[in-house]
Amino acid sequence: MARGHCAQHWRVYVITDVILARGRTHEEIAREAIRGGADVIQLRDKQASSRELYQVALRLRQMTREAGIPLIINDRVGIALAVDADGVHLGPEDMPADVVRKLLGPNRIVGVTATNLEQALQAQQGGADYVGLGPIFESRGLDPDPTKATGLELVRQVRQALNIPIVAIGGVSLNNVASVIQAGAQTVAAISAIVTAADIAERVQEFAQHVQSAMTNCQHPSGEGSS
Amino acid sequence: MARGHCAQHWRVYVITDVILARGRTHEEIAREAIRGGADVIQLRDKQASSRELYQVALRLRQMTREAGIPLIINDRVGIALAVDADGVHLGPEDMPADVVRKLLGPNRIVGVTATNLEQALQAQQGGADYVGLGPIFESRGLDPDPTKATGLELVRQVRQALNIPIVAIGGVSLNNVASVIQAGAQTVAAISAIVTAADIAERVQEFAQHVQSAMTNCQHPSGEGSS
Repeated sequence: MARGHCAQHWRVYVITDVILARGRTHEEIAREAIRGGADVIQLRDKQASSRELYQVALRLRQMTREAGIPLIINDRVGIALAVDADGVHLGPEDMPADVVRKLLGPNRIVGVTATNLEQALQAQQGGADYVGLGPIFESRGLDPDPTKATGLELVRQVRQALNIPIVAIGGVSLNNVASVIQAGAQTVAAISAIVTAADIAERVQEFAQHVQSAMTNCQHPSGEGSS
Repeated sequence: MARGHCAQHWRVYVITDVILARGRTHEEIAREAIRGGADVIQLRDKQASSRELYQVALRLRQMTREAGIPLIINDRVGIALAVDADGVHLGPEDMPADVVRKLLGPNRIVGVTATNLEQALQAQQGGADYVGLGPIFESRGLDPDPTKATGLELVRQVRQALNIPIVAIGGVSLNNVASVIQAGAQTVAAISAIVTAADIAERVQEFAQHVQSAMTNCQHPSGEGSS
């Protein structure tokens, strides 16, 4: 998988956070997400022991490989290498991207969180394959502080400034997903809007359809659409 | 450093746990431990973020390299690789030793915790370079449950059964360190007995002297001494 290539084709990026998942496991979330057409799965668990995370990651590796989609591990480079994951996603409390790039090599995916334009530019300069941009809207998920919501204008700014794909995250829902794509994101990521759904597969499918429809309307993938 | 080789020369193995350390940092513990003659430093922190742990590990890597002693990272393989540590120590909640061996290669150290003879044999069969055996005595450290103390008889059994070095841990103090060495351990590790000391350097030096003295008395390194 060429660096920076794969992310351009992602529509829906599912993060298997179990805290909001109504008792469902990482495996259950991933299975349903794949059934609904998820383009990439990120395993995220800040509480699990390394042993537990490794065992879950092995199962998700098998599932995603059978589905032909990438598996990305949040934060934990050793786990990612151990299960031959496709990449790692790095937040601000994780290892620096340039250090992780050396460990993963050029052919794995390194995604980096950014909350503003400066961080997004740093992520690209640091060799990130995509930027996880947000929180775009007020969110019930990872960072519930509404004052931090960046809004769509940041998506437009980052789209103008960066070459790497934008994975928009934070409060993205079926109601606003079209606006996020029209602002220039290639991919939408959601935690609460997906893992809290009674039918995760159906919800992922709806997200994928909304992204697809919005992309057609704004002549993606250039991101310079009619909006 | 040849696999399994280095550990045979360790006397005192210092674990930089900060929880019991009276407010002292990993760096402060490591600096004093090195000053007192520690033979190996293990960085252990289950609470820190990956970013924090990486930054601390970088500083400990520099300090241990200048001192010419190995740095071992508890649990976190990605951090160990990122800072070019000498090895990783694995507890029961960490990744399996054979998986970690593949990631670290033959020339780095893999240490594995064992609480009984079966686990010690498994550790050796799994490619461990040393076994961290214990808790030998009732401990105020990692696992304060006194019913789990294994006693010196386990050290003797493991010494008979294994070829790799024994790093004895758990309740090891200046009062009992000679008995641990005489039972067959090559190395003593301590958390509370070292990091709670007012003068860590002095305490490490005392441990090293006690180990040296006990080794002379029981004709180590064979471990089959006069006891």
